[in-house]
Amino acid sequence: MKLQIVGCYSATPRKSTQTTAQVLYIKGEIFLIDCGEGTQMKLRELGVSFSKIKHIFISHLHGDHCFGLIGLISTFRLLGREKELHIYGPKGIEEMITLQLKLANSWTNYSLVFHELSSKKSELIFENKNIKVSTVPLKHRVYTNGFLFEEKEGLRKINKEAIKNYSIEKCDFLNLQNGKDIELSNGEILANDKVTFSPEPPKKYAFCSDTIYNEEIVPIIKNANLLYHESTFLNEHLELAKKTFHSTAGQAGKIAKLANVKQLLLGHYSTRYKHNENFKIEAKKEFENTILSEDGLKINIE
Amino acid sequence: MKLQIVGCYSATPRKSTQTTAQVLYIKGEIFLIDCGEGTQMKLRELGVSFSKIKHIFISHLHGDHCFGLIGLISTFRLLGREKELHIYGPKGIEEMITLQLKLANSWTNYSLVFHELSSKKSELIFENKNIKVSTVPLKHRVYTNGFLFEEKEGLRKINKEAIKNYSIEKCDFLNLQNGKDIELSNGEILANDKVTFSPEPPKKYAFCSDTIYNEEIVPIIKNANLLYHESTFLNEHLELAKKTFHSTAGQAGKIAKLANVKQLLLGHYSTRYKHNENFKIEAKKEFENTILSEDGLKINIE
Repeated sequence: MKLQIVGCYSATPRKSTQTTAQVLYIKGEIFLIDCGEGTQMKLRELGVSFSKIKHIFISHLHGDHCFGLIGLISTFRLLGREKELHIYGPKGIEEMITLQLKLANSWTNYSLVFHELSSKKSELIFENKNIKVSTVPLKHRVYTNGFLFEEKEGLRKINKEAIKNYSIEKCDFLNLQNGKDIELSNGEILANDKVTFSPEPPKKYAFCSDTIYNEEIVPIIKNANLLYHESTFLNEHLELAKKTFHSTAGQAGKIAKLANVKQLLLGHYSTRYKHNENFKIEAKKEFENTILSEDGLKINIE
Repeated sequence: MKLQIVGCYSATPRKSTQTTAQVLYIKGEIFLIDCGEGTQMKLRELGVSFSKIKHIFISHLHGDHCFGLIGLISTFRLLGREKELHIYGPKGIEEMITLQLKLANSWTNYSLVFHELSSKKSELIFENKNIKVSTVPLKHRVYTNGFLFEEKEGLRKINKEAIKNYSIEKCDFLNLQNGKDIELSNGEILANDKVTFSPEPPKKYAFCSDTIYNEEIVPIIKNANLLYHESTFLNEHLELAKKTFHSTAGQAGKIAKLANVKQLLLGHYSTRYKHNENFKIEAKKEFENTILSEDGLKINIE
């Protein structure tokens, strides 16, 4: 599981700072999370394969999280895309995109599948054999979801040395990988753990932006390997954070501690601050393993 | 009259090429013409004052000419703009913008005035004491207008040397500037041209993008000081130009010649070509005084 930050600033894109977008590489899939204006140009710069993006998750319909979506969809069309594209986002996102396509008389020649969200409870919105994605209901000025990306438990690994001692039917290898004990040709039962290793523990990435401080998300994101939690402000602007339904770096640290995550990633910085380092200093007082996002940064999720 | 090219490429923005947007400085006004994705970042880079932009002209609703508009409008809001903003563009542009503002629950705190266009004939859409702007109906895959920006005839200039010979009432200076003859205190009539110079001849800038080759625009843009005419393709792709309702550089040159303009500016290049220089070579066969637009270029309109 790898994450690349495309943009990590709030409000409005500038000459050298991008608004929110992230690319998550997970079990062979490339998921795009949010899509501020200019995301398509930055994706080109970062060398992200357009054709491999099949699922886009939009947290909410504020411009710094979605104004680049229509441009990306249009560029996919111009590049001759044929693969389906799935878009998960708040109710209204389909109308927003289709109105613009209609006015441009430029329908996509690929299938555009919208999954509109309106539940206020966490729900499973994507699942395949390796991955599941659920919403993390957030509290912001408009309807907003974070997203929890979870790997599923992988297959057990065959212990190549140990199996040399047994005569195992070919078809039983998959049973072993699936954790089953098997019956050998002599009728003996072979306990699974004698000839397999546990798979790597599945990983979880929780994306939480934008939101006011909200402890209700803690049970959903519990024990995540990495938590991205917005930190638009520093504690010195706590009142402003409350008023605008955003969080401070200190609050992000508190959520990370309560949720017992392995690592906290800060972002969605207000450009009023000159030194992002202060976000880290503030969050670390609550939660030690804190890192800062920056446009273009790649992170291995351990 | 000065023009600055913000972006001059077609279809889709890339790492280092912008889609269409131009800034026209004319008699104290700053007009923005078209607004592809990323225009707001490029405007910042070029140092264009956001607060001085009060009028935005959108040729048509293809993404490479308008996907940056909603972001710019939102950024104006975030920067605390109070001044009215006027937007001129095809019918549908108001719905496109207001739907996005509604979904974001982010209404502007300044007044947003839409002037929706639907006429197929040239019409006057803006006028103040110094400037007028008319549409140039174009033929493209969707409803499209170019725009003709015209300075009005300025006041005549007082010949400071010549007036020393006469005793002129203060209130008559404005009459002289307005081209009137005046009566001196001794009853003598003073011919205007004895004490004034002609003002600089008013200038015209014609913006024509996107369009198939269309001689019907020639009478409207006749004698313009500068004509921007799209040249998406070279003549080697003439059939493609026809099919997609675009023009070649050679065709842009023909229109410039027929309209007897002073200078031709090419742009809206397809990125399939490696050397933009070839657009100029081709157009020059039809019309000698041809220049190439490039992102960031400033042009004095003489």
